[in-house]
Amino acid sequence: MPPLLAISPGDPHGIGPEVCVKAITARPDFRYLVTGAAGILIEAAQRYAPQLRVRKVRAADEAVEPGILYLLAGKQLDLDFSALSPDLRGRQHGRQIHDWIVRAADLALEGAVDGVVTAPIAKTAFKAAGIVFPGHTELLAERSRTTDFAMMLSCERLKVVLATIHLPLKAIFDELTPAELERVIRLAARTLPGWFGTTAPRIAVAGLNPHAGEEGLLGSEETGWIGPLVRRLSAEGLPVSGPYSPDTVFYRASKGEFDAVIALYHDQGLIPIKMIGFDEGVNSTLGLPFIRTSPDHGTAFEIAWQGKANPSSMIHAIELAAAAAGNRRRAP
Amino acid sequence: MPPLLAISPGDPHGIGPEVCVKAITARPDFRYLVTGAAGILIEAAQRYAPQLRVRKVRAADEAVEPGILYLLAGKQLDLDFSALSPDLRGRQHGRQIHDWIVRAADLALEGAVDGVVTAPIAKTAFKAAGIVFPGHTELLAERSRTTDFAMMLSCERLKVVLATIHLPLKAIFDELTPAELERVIRLAARTLPGWFGTTAPRIAVAGLNPHAGEEGLLGSEETGWIGPLVRRLSAEGLPVSGPYSPDTVFYRASKGEFDAVIALYHDQGLIPIKMIGFDEGVNSTLGLPFIRTSPDHGTAFEIAWQGKANPSSMIHAIELAAAAAGNRRRAP
Repeated sequence: MPPLLAISPGDPHGIGPEVCVKAITARPDFRYLVTGAAGILIEAAQRYAPQLRVRKVRAADEAVEPGILYLLAGKQLDLDFSALSPDLRGRQHGRQIHDWIVRAADLALEGAVDGVVTAPIAKTAFKAAGIVFPGHTELLAERSRTTDFAMMLSCERLKVVLATIHLPLKAIFDELTPAELERVIRLAARTLPGWFGTTAPRIAVAGLNPHAGEEGLLGSEETGWIGPLVRRLSAEGLPVSGPYSPDTVFYRASKGEFDAVIALYHDQGLIPIKMIGFDEGVNSTLGLPFIRTSPDHGTAFEIAWQGKANPSSMIHAIELAAAAAGNRRRAP
Repeated sequence: MPPLLAISPGDPHGIGPEVCVKAITARPDFRYLVTGAAGILIEAAQRYAPQLRVRKVRAADEAVEPGILYLLAGKQLDLDFSALSPDLRGRQHGRQIHDWIVRAADLALEGAVDGVVTAPIAKTAFKAAGIVFPGHTELLAERSRTTDFAMMLSCERLKVVLATIHLPLKAIFDELTPAELERVIRLAARTLPGWFGTTAPRIAVAGLNPHAGEEGLLGSEETGWIGPLVRRLSAEGLPVSGPYSPDTVFYRASKGEFDAVIALYHDQGLIPIKMIGFDEGVNSTLGLPFIRTSPDHGTAFEIAWQGKANPSSMIHAIELAAAAAGNRRRAP
């Protein structure tokens, strides 16, 4: 059987529903169970994927055929298209958006699906509903009681794992501790084989300062603790090296020298991914008890429900989730 | 007459001499005066550009024909190939390397040449000779008594001006002041038209924090002073906007939305340039009284004198210097 992916449709005012139906049409070889917003998805399918077959089901085990959009029925999961109001986009339905994600996560935790793909949400809608999670990653980690997780961004030619995520730049000097970087390196070394089917991924650690500190001339973190930490983990047998000059390590990885790069802060990792993989970037969470991917774009409210949304990133998110689920099945 | 470019050959142990002779061969439509290292350049030409005509001259006005490598004669400028010693690379001839650069700068200051292109040097060679400048930029600024200068990195699809350069990441919180960012924005607005022949370059300012601070949630610099500064300069008529999310602004510029991006720190600007223009990056200095460009790579000692060096970046440096010199001539 092809892998069964649970899909949370994201903010219904955004492009999530549209990229869901377009992406499922583009990859009819996998099985799909959308965890809510039946009224919204049916409208999106009618508009943007008229050939797509849509069926309501009551449980995951009914989602047997590939290429069909199975909708998980249940009153509290549904939402009528007529309920949408452009004036309130980004501020409405936060509770339901949350519940769709939680339902997908729970199905994965129960083993009823092989992976989860989440369409984009707006933090503001969560906030308006009194939900405190800054995003999917933290919500899914909490739901699965995981503290050892990390965000990965990937495109065809580059995979980046972030050692810190949504922090003011200044805060990384407090938050990026040796223990935290060690945790992320170990997590990457442990989980990347399952994600990409590689046995010993060559993991590069980016430096923090220009030229990776140039032997202390441009910053002391590399000589002070990043270098010693990487050498210790390498000596232990982890396939890790660095720290490398940040301005070239991502390019070198994109050319095949490394399988993944540990970026020390948000923009260090996201700038190179967006430069070469803008329309195909995938955001994944390492360390959860299940596979979870997401397109690397936002709700794009300004172009929602106009038929203009590019499903490329969502298609890549589905493909990576399916591939990783396959690796997991085959793993001993 | 085609523009006359002074070229300093860089560290003779590096790939500078090789990329010089290869690049001149590739662009025989400009005029070239190499300011020293005659013995080194003659050896490089014999090895890597056997068709290239090389002539020694005593003054810039003798360099009349395009496509010829004119060598500025003068005992203290020369260096024999036999003087090179691989064991001492990066530590020898610092004084001469320095003098070649100064000679090129002086020719430009006198108006004897239309621009300067500098091949790569190693800071270690300068240091060994007791020369304190960290690089070309600072040396050329001092020589021309310029304090209002900035480094620009450019490739075909992206132009980046750096608001801070070689600093530990932590130091930018002290060094990147409102006055300094304002100076760099004004400098870019004033000088970019001459460099690229555009009348009102659309200049984007990158934010400092993830998502440009997300309205204060991820850092206060954007709301606190960067945003107000950009709005004030824009209201004054400068073609500047921002601050934009750092992870997308470079991509947007590369797609044509902006003509240049002001990057707030070294890696923010260099990572995107290297991702999409690794072999064609050009390093220029804005604000000098003359045009100055350089290839965006180092001495690459490990592949020097093996015929393996890629002259692409040097060719682009020559092309940009020639184009900017042409714009300057045509300017009122």
